[in-house]
Amino acid sequence: MRAAPGLADYLADVEELLDRSVAGHPGLVAEIGTEALTAGGKRLRPMLTFLSAPADRAPSVVAGAAVELVHMATLVHDDLIDGASVRRGKAAAWSAFGAEAARATGDYLFARAFSELAADGDLAGVSALAEASLALARGEALQRRQRYDPDTTVDGYLERCSLKTGKLFEAACLLGGGSGDYGRLLGISFQIVDDILDCAGDSNETGKIPGTDLRDGTPTLPLLLAAQSDETVRAAIAGGPLEGVLVRVAATGALERSRAVALDYAIRARESLSGESRRRELEALADAVVDRNR
Amino acid sequence: MRAAPGLADYLADVEELLDRSVAGHPGLVAEIGTEALTAGGKRLRPMLTFLSAPADRAPSVVAGAAVELVHMATLVHDDLIDGASVRRGKAAAWSAFGAEAARATGDYLFARAFSELAADGDLAGVSALAEASLALARGEALQRRQRYDPDTTVDGYLERCSLKTGKLFEAACLLGGGSGDYGRLLGISFQIVDDILDCAGDSNETGKIPGTDLRDGTPTLPLLLAAQSDETVRAAIAGGPLEGVLVRVAATGALERSRAVALDYAIRARESLSGESRRRELEALADAVVDRNR
Repeated sequence: MRAAPGLADYLADVEELLDRSVAGHPGLVAEIGTEALTAGGKRLRPMLTFLSAPADRAPSVVAGAAVELVHMATLVHDDLIDGASVRRGKAAAWSAFGAEAARATGDYLFARAFSELAADGDLAGVSALAEASLALARGEALQRRQRYDPDTTVDGYLERCSLKTGKLFEAACLLGGGSGDYGRLLGISFQIVDDILDCAGDSNETGKIPGTDLRDGTPTLPLLLAAQSDETVRAAIAGGPLEGVLVRVAATGALERSRAVALDYAIRARESLSGESRRRELEALADAVVDRNR
Repeated sequence: MRAAPGLADYLADVEELLDRSVAGHPGLVAEIGTEALTAGGKRLRPMLTFLSAPADRAPSVVAGAAVELVHMATLVHDDLIDGASVRRGKAAAWSAFGAEAARATGDYLFARAFSELAADGDLAGVSALAEASLALARGEALQRRQRYDPDTTVDGYLERCSLKTGKLFEAACLLGGGSGDYGRLLGISFQIVDDILDCAGDSNETGKIPGTDLRDGTPTLPLLLAAQSDETVRAAIAGGPLEGVLVRVAATGALERSRAVALDYAIRARESLSGESRRRELEALADAVVDRNR
């Protein structure tokens, strides 16, 4: 994807604001926040904010930073709950500092997002981000209900993707002034690909290391599709033995079928675009989301 | 304290909005949120919002509900971290439903507060509540740093009170259009009294059941003052044996000295008032906060 003129500058400005938002405050919260920040990430959400804005208008840097702050807050909180010890190749905040510190940091990043938007006078932004945050919390609750449940429907899984990922992508686009539909559909596509990668990553190739989702009992699309024809996979989702299960998942063709679903959502995202000035870039981004391998 | 004309109606309206905010959404989040809601509480913060408004102006119901939603979110999250099994006489959300559900519920209540204020067009309210939320997170982090540290200074303790309690009281008053100083000082007074009650409650009279703070290693004012003259109390804060420690705390006179500090803050809160139309009620509230025994 070729960078749209100004995107690099915009992302640099977002990064600077993120730095200031997080590191400008003393103590452990800043320390963990900075760790979460320097751990990096694709900054896909601020990118969406930029690309959703009219080409002749400078998009709000605060908006891009705010949506990323909420995303970072969910990562820190997820680590707290999941007990994931490594995120993006660095020790997760909770393991280095304890659950309490991770909770405080997540809450801080979350509040910071609203504080920045309010200081910017962006009431519509506050509203969009609050709605996305409500969806995130509902998605968390839904994930908990679906845990270890091999009878989770594909629709139930897709609803979870929409709540946990789609709505924040949607907010990122709305904050830029663009189409919410594009963002939501792209987010679902993105999440499906994430879930495929969790089943098929390099470290899983032998099938001896179960993916994070399988270990957590989180029923993802590839696992659910595989379970339709493989009772061992079905039992694994329900909490049974995990060894060799990812090889079985791959053998059912569930990864390819999941990828087809992800592609379908990416296509629908592209098709939802109409008058966006950066339409070509948004289309390319949708392609890149499906084609990525990390 | 005599209820100001309209206070009962206002609090009833707040309660109705809280009900709708929480229960209007399906699933576990609503269930836990409703549990947290029906567990009750003094609704002191919405009361502050009402009393801070000019007597001739109808204060915003959304503002009162939003500040209480943030307070409820912190209670649910505190339960998640502290492992407190009982809050307000009911099983804490986390113990009934698991840490993940409590986290999702806390996040939901938090986002709901901002969503309600944004829908109400109250940008100043969003700003005040976001600042208070940032302070809450910093207070959490400070509490973690002070844990098991008998060398925590009284100033450090008071800063924690200001961040964890004072700033949300301040926001409650600002949301009503009143004096932030009054709220912050009252909040510190309120927290000191809470900490005294944790050392001196009925169930602790034998000294055999250590208070929550002592068990958690949280250095509160009565514990710190007692530790100045009692090495056993000092060792208990640092994680040593707890049995009989609360009797020793009482014997040092630390409870009375702490109460004097609480009273001083309540007086300063009263003195910070100037043109508030409901000054008399606010003064009475400050007295009631210090005199309460639960």
